[in-house]
Amino acid sequence: MRKLGVGVLGVGEMGKRHAENIRRLVPEARLVAVADASADRARQVAAELEIENSYGSLEALLECKDLDAVLIATPDKFHAQAIGIAARSGKDILCEKPLALNIADARAALEAVSKAQVRLQIGFMRRYDPAYAAAMKRIEGGEIGTPVIFKSVGRDKDEPPLAAYQSNLNGMVFYNNTIHDFDLARWLMRDEVSEVHSYTTVAIRPEVARYSDIVAGVVNLQYRNGAIGNVESYVQAVYGYDVRTEIVGSKGSILIGSLRQAPTTFLTALGGVQTLADHFLTRFQDAYLAEVRDFVQNILHERPLRVSGDDGMRALAIAVAAEKSHLQKTAVKVTLEVGLPA
Amino acid sequence: MRKLGVGVLGVGEMGKRHAENIRRLVPEARLVAVADASADRARQVAAELEIENSYGSLEALLECKDLDAVLIATPDKFHAQAIGIAARSGKDILCEKPLALNIADARAALEAVSKAQVRLQIGFMRRYDPAYAAAMKRIEGGEIGTPVIFKSVGRDKDEPPLAAYQSNLNGMVFYNNTIHDFDLARWLMRDEVSEVHSYTTVAIRPEVARYSDIVAGVVNLQYRNGAIGNVESYVQAVYGYDVRTEIVGSKGSILIGSLRQAPTTFLTALGGVQTLADHFLTRFQDAYLAEVRDFVQNILHERPLRVSGDDGMRALAIAVAAEKSHLQKTAVKVTLEVGLPA
Amino acid sequence: MRKLGVGVLGVGEMGKRHAENIRRLVPEARLVAVADASADRARQVAAELEIENSYGSLEALLECKDLDAVLIATPDKFHAQAIGIAARSGKDILCEKPLALNIADARAALEAVSKAQVRLQIGFMRRYDPAYAAAMKRIEGGEIGTPVIFKSVGRDKDEPPLAAYQSNLNGMVFYNNTIHDFDLARWLMRDEVSEVHSYTTVAIRPEVARYSDIVAGVVNLQYRNGAIGNVESYVQAVYGYDVRTEIVGSKGSILIGSLRQAPTTFLTALGGVQTLADHFLTRFQDAYLAEVRDFVQNILHERPLRVSGDDGMRALAIAVAAEKSHLQKTAVKVTLEVGLPA
Amino acid sequence: MRKLGVGVLGVGEMGKRHAENIRRLVPEARLVAVADASADRARQVAAELEIENSYGSLEALLECKDLDAVLIATPDKFHAQAIGIAARSGKDILCEKPLALNIADARAALEAVSKAQVRLQIGFMRRYDPAYAAAMKRIEGGEIGTPVIFKSVGRDKDEPPLAAYQSNLNGMVFYNNTIHDFDLARWLMRDEVSEVHSYTTVAIRPEVARYSDIVAGVVNLQYRNGAIGNVESYVQAVYGYDVRTEIVGSKGSILIGSLRQAPTTFLTALGGVQTLADHFLTRFQDAYLAEVRDFVQNILHERPLRVSGDDGMRALAIAVAAEKSHLQKTAVKVTLEVGLPA
Repeated sequence: MRKLGVGVLGVGEMGKRHAENIRRLVPEARLVAVADASADRARQVAAELEIENSYGSLEALLECKDLDAVLIATPDKFHAQAIGIAARSGKDILCEKPLALNIADARAALEAVSKAQVRLQIGFMRRYDPAYAAAMKRIEGGEIGTPVIFKSVGRDKDEPPLAAYQSNLNGMVFYNNTIHDFDLARWLMRDEVSEVHSYTTVAIRPEVARYSDIVAGVVNLQYRNGAIGNVESYVQAVYGYDVRTEIVGSKGSILIGSLRQAPTTFLTALGGVQTLADHFLTRFQDAYLAEVRDFVQNILHERPLRVSGDDGMRALAIAVAAEKSHLQKTAVKVTLEVGLPA
Repeated sequence: MRKLGVGVLGVGEMGKRHAENIRRLVPEARLVAVADASADRARQVAAELEIENSYGSLEALLECKDLDAVLIATPDKFHAQAIGIAARSGKDILCEKPLALNIADARAALEAVSKAQVRLQIGFMRRYDPAYAAAMKRIEGGEIGTPVIFKSVGRDKDEPPLAAYQSNLNGMVFYNNTIHDFDLARWLMRDEVSEVHSYTTVAIRPEVARYSDIVAGVVNLQYRNGAIGNVESYVQAVYGYDVRTEIVGSKGSILIGSLRQAPTTFLTALGGVQTLADHFLTRFQDAYLAEVRDFVQNILHERPLRVSGDDGMRALAIAVAAEKSHLQKTAVKVTLEVGLPA
Repeated sequence: MRKLGVGVLGVGEMGKRHAENIRRLVPEARLVAVADASADRARQVAAELEIENSYGSLEALLECKDLDAVLIATPDKFHAQAIGIAARSGKDILCEKPLALNIADARAALEAVSKAQVRLQIGFMRRYDPAYAAAMKRIEGGEIGTPVIFKSVGRDKDEPPLAAYQSNLNGMVFYNNTIHDFDLARWLMRDEVSEVHSYTTVAIRPEVARYSDIVAGVVNLQYRNGAIGNVESYVQAVYGYDVRTEIVGSKGSILIGSLRQAPTTFLTALGGVQTLADHFLTRFQDAYLAEVRDFVQNILHERPLRVSGDDGMRALAIAVAAEKSHLQKTAVKVTLEVGLPA
Repeated sequence: MRKLGVGVLGVGEMGKRHAENIRRLVPEARLVAVADASADRARQVAAELEIENSYGSLEALLECKDLDAVLIATPDKFHAQAIGIAARSGKDILCEKPLALNIADARAALEAVSKAQVRLQIGFMRRYDPAYAAAMKRIEGGEIGTPVIFKSVGRDKDEPPLAAYQSNLNGMVFYNNTIHDFDLARWLMRDEVSEVHSYTTVAIRPEVARYSDIVAGVVNLQYRNGAIGNVESYVQAVYGYDVRTEIVGSKGSILIGSLRQAPTTFLTALGGVQTLADHFLTRFQDAYLAEVRDFVQNILHERPLRVSGDDGMRALAIAVAAEKSHLQKTAVKVTLEVGLPA
């Protein structure tokens, strides 16, 4: 059996998980190397995963023999550039979301991919989550009729450290987090978002305004075909990691999401108590694995990839419009002017 | 419209609720009087419900003009005798469970009813609860196939006061409480229980053993047609009033019961918290009302009553066998010898 | 005990329920009469409730001896005018929502109330629902910290008949239905809404556009103190009556709402199935009763009413702004210009 | 880092999963070989997992260089003998439940283990499930006070093929399945079961009686210290794989178990629908992995194993008593006579 040689660029929390999955759980792939701006970190992860090669740069990684594809899990800021470099080097690419932090960079990345005739998948892994996938199957089967309303909630548990804002390595929350919901908003509704209006707040942590970021935001959505929706983001929910989505249709609705971490309820005089989910790597453990497996198999068998660069671009365009709406405090059209490639 | 004249005997917590329902919520009935061993209590309830007549005894109540039927809600101990007296007086009867505390008394009561040709319904109100009624409809519709296992849980919230045991006015828990589950065990399974084996405990409150009562018990059930089951009772669950039933069949199962008092969940760093149900008058509010309405209408329209004296006798026979099993620490057959009338 | 003499104006589905509650379940009140534009309907309800007086107009009702207060449950269109008439007649008033269909009418009604020195409560009964009341208690107790996001969903089950739109007796959905959520949006957040932006759709039933109404709408909310939120309405959810609210705070969140009608789950090879709630009179049965009880007691004991005319005005102002936003397709400020009385 | 060399004996559905886990997800272990009575099957699994060695017998496996420990996942019937052989060969052992199908075999196996001074863990993996582990932590922390009632439900989805009964390779359901619950009954209650009474049925599939097996059974439990309980087993629940446990205490209770396979609810005019869990390898995926990881680490670091041979023996003794009760139709003491080693 031919195995796909994959290298992982960026082995922080997310990239390390990808590397582990590839190393251990994707029989059709071989983890040939890991790379990280911190060569030390790369070395440590390589040791832990018992592979030989680790590098301190993408360029070094690309020299690696037997490398067929690169999984990019660097901070958001470097995604687009890394895609360009990997593409020019002829490698297929699975890149974490977002595709880029602005439309120009995204366009450059997609052009490099197109020119090099390599393949690119964007890491919208929720599409692989069993609950989301089951929902999509029902939608495609016509079971909810015409979709009318889309709603999504994305809440992270703990207040991010100020250092995360200061480093400026990732985009503000719409790019780094809500972009998952923007992708779902297109994918599950099978329609494009034409306008957004963001209401945002920093009320309980005013200092994040200094970094043009927010504590919470609700982005109203208008779809081309008349459907409506909204997406909520909250970065310090305190009680847990809470991702929920609802698709409301003319014949029925689908609710996706669960608050509980484990199926245990504790009953006392104080009431019934459940322990709540608290981390995306736990909630979406299966999705991350299914994503990389699907990528590897589709590359090997030359089948189309499930999440395209265009998907990355379109979700990004919604994020760009949502940020603009947040800054200008008006509704903003999601149009080519905002950023879709001509 | 002719109205059924109803008198309520015993206006403690339960009887008062019945009186309120009849007074206010059953248009086809008229509450003609209330009676209670405490004439004071009867007077107070009559004042509150704005009716004229209150009495200190069943005999006085029976003298009351326009009295067609009597609802008996005295302590358990007096049920059978009150049925006899009311029957001989020609009144139709709705009597709270249990029918009696032993088979001989029950038989005497049923004989009086039969001789007087009055009608008697036993207060197994759970049959009127929307959730239980919906379950029964599915079972009768064949939706779960052949019933295989019956399970029921009945837990009260707060430790009963020792005075309740000392007064000896009600039967031990199998008669006073579990008898609801014994009735459901027959009704929902549409089969008769042929043998029981009780495992009981006083572990966390040994002093109730003095009154031959228990803190918790699980009664194993063997059905005539081969099905099996069990019924659990616990009188001091601390966390709430928890009644749940499950009917497991060859084609599907039905779960009945809910822990939540209100549809509210509170999410904090400690987890998700729900306030739990805590009282039978809240949980079964609709059932009590539906029960008395149905009784009144069936009497008025001379239709068969929904829960018969025989139902009362058969549930009692299971309770008698369960108590015997508890005392003898062996399995006990539910047979005519135990108490079904010849 | 002095009883409050109450007359009910409008005995359609809603008014009849109020009349029943007053007649049967509010000991401190006496239902002295019912009135309806259809004198026949009034007569029928009076007969059913076994009261003597029924009338074909408010004016006739107001002549009725022993009338202390009027409960107004006419179509929305007549609320404001009826308030004015009843007020000038010196009666205290409990009026169903909305206070009026426009600010001018609302202002006239409040002025009449103020001039006549009668008392007015608006029928935002959800504040009396045990689940909402429990949530408010936690919020007031500081348990969720600073409120950050408010969300509410209001879905009716069945497509309204076109006749309902044609008659033009009620306001469009924001006035007739969403106004409950607008009230909750103020009450639970203890803050005022300063701006709204409505995204609406008639996609699956274009003919309602002819009546300037919608099939579904999401109204984005901006609060004065920085919090944000949204309110969704959908008039033909097909699967049930679905009302849910969520208040997200700096220290915790509260979820209110339940889909299930009864605590029963049916398990078969097809999955787990629950019967869903389908009507507001069932879901909010307790709230309607608690509301009228509270009104009666506060009037009798000369205590402040729990939901004021000003509450009615402010919720109306949000509805007016939301409708304007829907028509103009822009964000709209909720200001005095929109309609709060100077 | 020294790695523990593990061989897996028996690579059917269960053993293959263990082999996969060891091969891929336990960094401290090395899968040195697999063996199976079907050498073909062993070869195929070895190929799939990309390891070199596969064998057709335990004896051959034991010859394998670098083998430190054996994981036994053969049919139940061969467990005890395989333990004996592996022990005499000086290997540490993780053996699937049950330890044996009778007390004599179990005793022989434990004696071999003891004599060879190897270590043995029994595969009661539910102890490693996050939900069960969290429950145990609360119990040990005294949060539910004194345990009073234990309840457990184990239902498999699909009717077993008759061939499974005919082959006689596994014990009847109490040995093969309910033994998990018997273990939990001891572990979570921290007490020993002193008596059982089984009510069993073959009602909906009489032909299994020919193999002395059952379709469903409820085993009543009496504990030494006075607590009570019961355990239900049903081998053809149709709707799903349903494992639930409840521990009821003097200060609170814990419910463990979930019916849903994924956090998705589908709402239509027919009601709310959830897809249900259907397989133990999905439900307990994390538990199986945690189990083998813990075993490997404890062996490597010479720490005590978490589930001992004695645990295996005691759960077996309950199963033996439950089967005897089933056959004799009486209560049966769980005593040394039944089978605990002197």
